[in-house]
Amino acid sequence: MFSYNKHMLKHVDLIISASYIAPVVPASLLHDYSVVIHNQTIVDLLPTTQVAGQYQAAQHTHLPQQIIIPGLINLHTHAAMSLMRGLADDVALMPWLQTHIWPAESAVMSPDFVHDGTLLACAEMLKGGITCFNDMYFYPEAAANAVNQAGMRATLGLVLLEFATRYASHAEEYLEKGLFARDILRSQTNISTMFAPHAPYTVSDSTFTKMLTLAAQLDIGIHTHLHETQAEIAQSLQQCQLRPLARLANLDLLGPNVTFAHGVYLTDLEWQILQSNGCHIAHCPSSNLKLGSGIAPIANLLASGVNVGLGTDGAASNNRLDMLSEMRLAALLAKGNSGDATAISTQKALEMATINGARALNLSDKIGSIEIGKLADLTAVDLSQCETAPLYDAISHLVYAAGREHVSHVWVNGDLKYQKMAESVGVFSGIEPQELKQIIAKWQPILAQFKK
Amino acid sequence: MFSYNKHMLKHVDLIISASYIAPVVPASLLHDYSVVIHNQTIVDLLPTTQVAGQYQAAQHTHLPQQIIIPGLINLHTHAAMSLMRGLADDVALMPWLQTHIWPAESAVMSPDFVHDGTLLACAEMLKGGITCFNDMYFYPEAAANAVNQAGMRATLGLVLLEFATRYASHAEEYLEKGLFARDILRSQTNISTMFAPHAPYTVSDSTFTKMLTLAAQLDIGIHTHLHETQAEIAQSLQQCQLRPLARLANLDLLGPNVTFAHGVYLTDLEWQILQSNGCHIAHCPSSNLKLGSGIAPIANLLASGVNVGLGTDGAASNNRLDMLSEMRLAALLAKGNSGDATAISTQKALEMATINGARALNLSDKIGSIEIGKLADLTAVDLSQCETAPLYDAISHLVYAAGREHVSHVWVNGDLKYQKMAESVGVFSGIEPQELKQIIAKWQPILAQFKK
Repeated sequence: MFSYNKHMLKHVDLIISASYIAPVVPASLLHDYSVVIHNQTIVDLLPTTQVAGQYQAAQHTHLPQQIIIPGLINLHTHAAMSLMRGLADDVALMPWLQTHIWPAESAVMSPDFVHDGTLLACAEMLKGGITCFNDMYFYPEAAANAVNQAGMRATLGLVLLEFATRYASHAEEYLEKGLFARDILRSQTNISTMFAPHAPYTVSDSTFTKMLTLAAQLDIGIHTHLHETQAEIAQSLQQCQLRPLARLANLDLLGPNVTFAHGVYLTDLEWQILQSNGCHIAHCPSSNLKLGSGIAPIANLLASGVNVGLGTDGAASNNRLDMLSEMRLAALLAKGNSGDATAISTQKALEMATINGARALNLSDKIGSIEIGKLADLTAVDLSQCETAPLYDAISHLVYAAGREHVSHVWVNGDLKYQKMAESVGVFSGIEPQELKQIIAKWQPILAQFKK
Repeated sequence: MFSYNKHMLKHVDLIISASYIAPVVPASLLHDYSVVIHNQTIVDLLPTTQVAGQYQAAQHTHLPQQIIIPGLINLHTHAAMSLMRGLADDVALMPWLQTHIWPAESAVMSPDFVHDGTLLACAEMLKGGITCFNDMYFYPEAAANAVNQAGMRATLGLVLLEFATRYASHAEEYLEKGLFARDILRSQTNISTMFAPHAPYTVSDSTFTKMLTLAAQLDIGIHTHLHETQAEIAQSLQQCQLRPLARLANLDLLGPNVTFAHGVYLTDLEWQILQSNGCHIAHCPSSNLKLGSGIAPIANLLASGVNVGLGTDGAASNNRLDMLSEMRLAALLAKGNSGDATAISTQKALEMATINGARALNLSDKIGSIEIGKLADLTAVDLSQCETAPLYDAISHLVYAAGREHVSHVWVNGDLKYQKMAESVGVFSGIEPQELKQIIAKWQPILAQFKK
């Protein structure tokens, strides 16, 4: 794997030496440490003082003001909805969907729209230290083009709905288009796919059943909304005398390949069902608050042993794609809601934003922590500004004090994909600022018609 | 007031022309507008197209990517505690105070500590668009020196406690020192003072009564903690068979000159009492969550007609002095907690962070909105980055999407006190980065001993 020089130094691609490294797994904080990267992969993690005696790197990046963490994993989003950011604020979920979002979508939905919105979202996410996201939206091939251009990693949903959109006319066509997209995307290194039935209230039992057969044949995961609002549960009880989770359990849909977004309303018994089936929750605290949906009992869920990751949801209901912000909010909200200031440690919060997301995406052998053998998806956060001083505990500052503005470098597969130069000139490897401006100029006037 | 040239143009000190101005009062959003400043005061607000025909300015600042808002007002903080940021996280209020904060304070408390910690806090606050804060801490003269150096505005508390600290030995001495400080500070233009009895659980009836007599004589306000935790209320019920607010009402302490920090636990009757007495609430959502105190029923309070401002609390329990973050959290939390996505409009959120704070500080004739005749305390927020694009509603972006990193210019009394140049070189008019570094180097090793 390595070549050696005459002094027996191993030649490697990249060494990053930082003030701190938080590997996440194991739970620790390494001071004055270096991560060594070769062939896209983390090959060593050692004290910086020992680097010179062992390695010679094509590139050595010194970050004396930074903490290095695993790239953040956004476990639930609708990336292309970035173009609808701020379009309709302060409206409850159903009227928000029915009066604003769905009409807007039906006017603009196209591969072009999805590509452009996804690229804008990738810019925002990379700039905020996110390297991987779990997306649920139409035209996954178009989204993949944007993800690949930005140089990120994504799991793209193969969306299923019963009703017609510009993407597909009926459930069968959604399935067909999803499978076609999956065939196209399976050769793309940084892209994976999951079935993404929108929600129990928009997908029928027969479609769920067909999808389950295919999911078993193809060995792919499932990503759906669940128990986001009380109204959703009441409607299900009225229509089929079952809470949505019970209905999905009856369909045999529960398993370790299933990620449920939201889970705001869950009973003790439902926590146990989720835990015993190995299901994952994508907690989206900002979106749940903003739509008035409620506060998910995350401290209890984690204590029950359920794997909980974090998501931003789409920028139309957040209005940020900012995992540092979600991480802080998740930790604070769990404490305030449970009345227990010790609920959700900073380490647990960081795990939710990284390794727990990787587990839900069935990618925890590749990403989610800084461990030897994993891919080098890494984020550097600058802790040298006045708002993160003094510094007593780097992980505390990462969770409670830092913001996405402190992200200085982001690598995916060991390649630098974002570096902050000066405030207004953050540089992406694959995105030109001018292109983003053109995207805004193109879509804003169209979407502005649907403004609240 | 003005001089005129031969073309009858009025000569003024400064004109700021921006893409948007949110005057807060009245509730509106002005597009392509300019604010005209002379002798520290806002003298006009007009469409930018009309400026050239009416004014000639010594300086004309063009901000085509920005929204201008009134400088943010932080209605409850302990500024110098910035030096204890991250010192003890994830601990409930009483053990946090008793095991960590009070021991640390008793080791370091001095005018020097207060000056340095306040200066660090001023840097963070100015950088985040805050122009005025309501402080409760020891040695207000030392805090005032830092505030004046930074060029901010502050209302400084004259702290009262029953027990001994390094600042004073007993209640009488706190009162004496407070009155002495007030005499020194009354000539300082940007400084005002309030009595700051720490809390009902740390101040006796007799001290409250003495303070009230003095407050009436001197016509100054009162700033205290109230109903922050359930434990505080239970203790009061046990000790004097009264909830703290009822005890203060019996002492005749309620009135429009009183600001209560927190108010997490308030009954319907208590809202009415606060409203009918004209008392103000300083809502501190991050701190209330982080200490596990709970979630204040702000949507209900505002609906009851109580004036609610926003505070960061100290950086030891937040851990940010970031009013844009508090504004977003207050708006989101009110929706999620009430189950009503329409609770707290973006305009209401902005009012809480500006004019409502000014009202509580009895400064609403001078600051809190962009109105002719008020002092020019102004903040410019850049809305041109990818995370605030597209732009459908500038006030929505200000509340939900923007962060303090987007603050580009901050003026106090029409003087530019902070301007963002490049990310790592934000420039203060009165603070040298080197000085902040020295402050950190000085205090961090001392305080690190008290680390959790």
